[in-house]
Amino acid sequence: MKQSRTFIPTIREIPTEADIISHQLLLRAGFVRRHMNGVYSYLPLAHKVLRKIENIIREEMENIDAVELSMPSLQQMELLAETESGISDRSDLFMLTDRSDRKMALGLDQASIITKIVQDEIKSYKKLPLTLYQIATLFKDEKRPRFGLIRMREYMMTNAYSFHADQESLNEKYKDMMNAYSTVFTRLGLDVRTVIANGTGSAGNKSHKFMSLSEVGEATIAYSDASTYAALMEMAEVNANYVLPNDSLKAMEKIETPNQHTVEEISTFLDIAPSKIIKTLIFKVNDDFVAILMRGDHMINESKLKRALGTTAISLASEHEIKDVLSCEPGSIGPVKLPLDTKVYADHAVGFIVNGVSGANENGYHLMNVNPERDFAIDDYMDLRFIQEGDPSPDGIGVIKFAAGIDLGFVTDIGDDISGTMDASFLDEQGNANSFVMGSYGLGISRILAAIAEQYNDANGLKWPKQLAPYDIHLVTVNIEDETQKQLSEEMYHLLKSYRYAVLYDDRHERPGVKFADSDLIGLPIRITIGKKAQDGIVEVKLRSTGEIFEWQREEITEKLQPFFG
Amino acid sequence: MKQSRTFIPTIREIPTEADIISHQLLLRAGFVRRHMNGVYSYLPLAHKVLRKIENIIREEMENIDAVELSMPSLQQMELLAETESGISDRSDLFMLTDRSDRKMALGLDQASIITKIVQDEIKSYKKLPLTLYQIATLFKDEKRPRFGLIRMREYMMTNAYSFHADQESLNEKYKDMMNAYSTVFTRLGLDVRTVIANGTGSAGNKSHKFMSLSEVGEATIAYSDASTYAALMEMAEVNANYVLPNDSLKAMEKIETPNQHTVEEISTFLDIAPSKIIKTLIFKVNDDFVAILMRGDHMINESKLKRALGTTAISLASEHEIKDVLSCEPGSIGPVKLPLDTKVYADHAVGFIVNGVSGANENGYHLMNVNPERDFAIDDYMDLRFIQEGDPSPDGIGVIKFAAGIDLGFVTDIGDDISGTMDASFLDEQGNANSFVMGSYGLGISRILAAIAEQYNDANGLKWPKQLAPYDIHLVTVNIEDETQKQLSEEMYHLLKSYRYAVLYDDRHERPGVKFADSDLIGLPIRITIGKKAQDGIVEVKLRSTGEIFEWQREEITEKLQPFFG
Repeated sequence: MKQSRTFIPTIREIPTEADIISHQLLLRAGFVRRHMNGVYSYLPLAHKVLRKIENIIREEMENIDAVELSMPSLQQMELLAETESGISDRSDLFMLTDRSDRKMALGLDQASIITKIVQDEIKSYKKLPLTLYQIATLFKDEKRPRFGLIRMREYMMTNAYSFHADQESLNEKYKDMMNAYSTVFTRLGLDVRTVIANGTGSAGNKSHKFMSLSEVGEATIAYSDASTYAALMEMAEVNANYVLPNDSLKAMEKIETPNQHTVEEISTFLDIAPSKIIKTLIFKVNDDFVAILMRGDHMINESKLKRALGTTAISLASEHEIKDVLSCEPGSIGPVKLPLDTKVYADHAVGFIVNGVSGANENGYHLMNVNPERDFAIDDYMDLRFIQEGDPSPDGIGVIKFAAGIDLGFVTDIGDDISGTMDASFLDEQGNANSFVMGSYGLGISRILAAIAEQYNDANGLKWPKQLAPYDIHLVTVNIEDETQKQLSEEMYHLLKSYRYAVLYDDRHERPGVKFADSDLIGLPIRITIGKKAQDGIVEVKLRSTGEIFEWQREEITEKLQPFFG
Repeated sequence: MKQSRTFIPTIREIPTEADIISHQLLLRAGFVRRHMNGVYSYLPLAHKVLRKIENIIREEMENIDAVELSMPSLQQMELLAETESGISDRSDLFMLTDRSDRKMALGLDQASIITKIVQDEIKSYKKLPLTLYQIATLFKDEKRPRFGLIRMREYMMTNAYSFHADQESLNEKYKDMMNAYSTVFTRLGLDVRTVIANGTGSAGNKSHKFMSLSEVGEATIAYSDASTYAALMEMAEVNANYVLPNDSLKAMEKIETPNQHTVEEISTFLDIAPSKIIKTLIFKVNDDFVAILMRGDHMINESKLKRALGTTAISLASEHEIKDVLSCEPGSIGPVKLPLDTKVYADHAVGFIVNGVSGANENGYHLMNVNPERDFAIDDYMDLRFIQEGDPSPDGIGVIKFAAGIDLGFVTDIGDDISGTMDASFLDEQGNANSFVMGSYGLGISRILAAIAEQYNDANGLKWPKQLAPYDIHLVTVNIEDETQKQLSEEMYHLLKSYRYAVLYDDRHERPGVKFADSDLIGLPIRITIGKKAQDGIVEVKLRSTGEIFEWQREEITEKLQPFFG
């Protein structure tokens, strides 16, 4: 393509609207333009990259027998109402009314519409399993669109849904889909972590996310510094391999701690480490009070508590409720001599405290040298805390670090969350109606474009990996008015095209400085410059990734290029 | 693809919701499903055909240096307000509000958004011309969606826009685009007529439509039975090659015609042909009255009148206004002795009436033997009537016939209609600001899918042309439980795939009748049946287009298939 005939509006200055590097560079290199807050146009270069990403996805989906279809963006409100559970927050929906006052919404996903289609057509286990996917534009009325293509209101995604007769079949597809998505990221050249994520429903079905580590990510990932282990911070299990201190047990002692309530206050007042303090929290679980014991330096992870107790009906007891039961304030609660009917659960770490400190269930007093099992009973030990940096990795290899991550994709076992609500069922081998067991999978295509730009760049611009570059080669003529240079350029352009290279040919009447700056900004893998040495049949070849420069004879170009695209 | 793994829900009965053949067959063969009125899902087979159509469009667009980009569906209301002229009917827009109460619309086209993008980036004639296009989903709140994929509320289209420094450059691109679109239709195998259409604006800029002749079309096309000439009925010019009758002029005579007003009444009352009657219509043009003369059997085409007089401010005078000026009723007006300041324009045909009849400008009277030029003056002769079946074709070849047509595409010179309103300009060589001269082009992709189904079918189902078929070959195993048949089928499947044929392999445990009926419905170009003769290594090959059947040895398959896909 001749650059004079296409549309690549580059910008020299850093646009004020952009605060992250991918957004700045995609604007500056003429890949995207903003239409509204969170709504962008993909200009010709970005469009080409998006199509390459799509094609990689299509190939990997076909490899695992996923079938592409295309569902509408306009969706019946009635249908969405049936599956309210599928949509986390109704205020995220763009809603509209047609000329007959019928309510519709713009698709935020295709979970309900695809379940409806399958439900209408598939009546027997014989036609299962079935995996369908779509590459589509989705719409979300984001509260705070930002970071360019990272958090948008209109964006491209691929969503896949699988339908199964049983859990075993879903598990198999889940694994296939994990592998396929991993392969997609490998082929894209994107560094991602497969991260254990929070599933849907109270059961907390299995779910994984694919995240690229990035400062601008909005989620915290806990990952091992020595293995592939990674989880959303709130999902990371904590290994219970604490060491019991070799101290002898001392006698319990009640001491005055006037106006000392928080762990920090007690720790300073008594000059002991927070890790020696037993923090007691009273939760209301359904209608019962439950005491939860945590080490003073640990934070309770309420999602873990909910999963451990198998219910979501959990809330911290109010000060008022606590006073009713214990006749003391929350800052003075302790595990010793709690009312008999109160269940006591402790985080594993509490079991390794020797001679600890706890509240005395009496305002203004704490107990010293408290020891679990000797001084109070514990109904069960559980994993209840957030993992921390420095903790051993749950897989036993390495140490946990935290990083921010951008969510690029997910695989989720949604079981019968949607098919159950919609009464979408099939007949099994025995003729019984069962709800479809479903998996839901997705990759954020616009976001992947941003993540690649975020990963592949330097001070001068973008540096596209060759499998995604909008063109393979940037052919730059230093002075297009010079007949020799122009002639050699045209010859090279046609030669390279005949070898099936995608060539962007800068035939513009611009100063060389402008051309080189644009070329670096755009960031195609190889630049071939036709300058003064054209008269000797010599061209300059520069690799964008390393900056290496070669001078080649015109006759050897095609042969010498080959290894770079092999 | 194994048929057991994909999703092709066929239907035996004719669905009641479908009243045209393409819609019936696309539903029955499992290509589409309705989600709402005018909103459809494209199931896997339709999706494949759509992608083939898109690819043909892309190739032809690239050939004429049109560049693909992708603009959002969510569009700023403010921007649309600027270019109200671009949108024919506001009630067709789907409008919505975001969570901050900002008004938006779903794209009905991309005219204003693309003009905004180009206006922001292109300041100089040096970067023109530029042609951009998009393949996108568009939304239209149709009053009456119908005919399946023909008139939808959410549909796929490609829209192209070209930007030029002058009319000459646009004219060139207009021609290129006409040719490219014609090539697209030829490659699609679609019978279309290139039809002269009504342009935008009062100037009536040049415009053409691409229409397939079909009973379900909503526009009337006037076409030549012997040449390629075709025009929207209201746009067809009428040749003025009438023959002057060889009669001698008789003396004018005033006769009583009590209560006879219409052409029909006068024709019966006087027993003369309507073609001998001169019909006089009084129009108000801006603030003046103008008399228009038509032959009694011809219908006035007001669009032609507007173009001829160069204004859209034209309306029929009211009875009240006519009485004020002529003191007679509309049914008694005639061209003789009209008030002096009334301009008189006549359709060409009027000049060939000898001894005609007209109103006498007096209630209850007409004039016999009226002759133009002798009895009244005519300021100008013009082409003012609708063409009729049987008229000579305007290009001089053949005779005009009428047919209904489906609008599949258009090319239009929109001049500065949009760029003028939006103040979108560039600096020319002299440094003067000029509005971009623009062209607008479009192809209805969903509608093309329907038009192809409408054209390629028989009583048993669809008959895909090979360049568009979702798969090349339908490999049907008569009895998949028969080990010999199954083994040969698997062998053929892998062999054909290795030869790069796209194969749909019916490996289902269904009765042969069901399989053959489904295969005819789906309509792939070639069916290869593996049945009882599998034990002798013989397969049956059937061409869907002609019904021809061959029996081939397994070893000769690939060689003998080649000519069909050459």
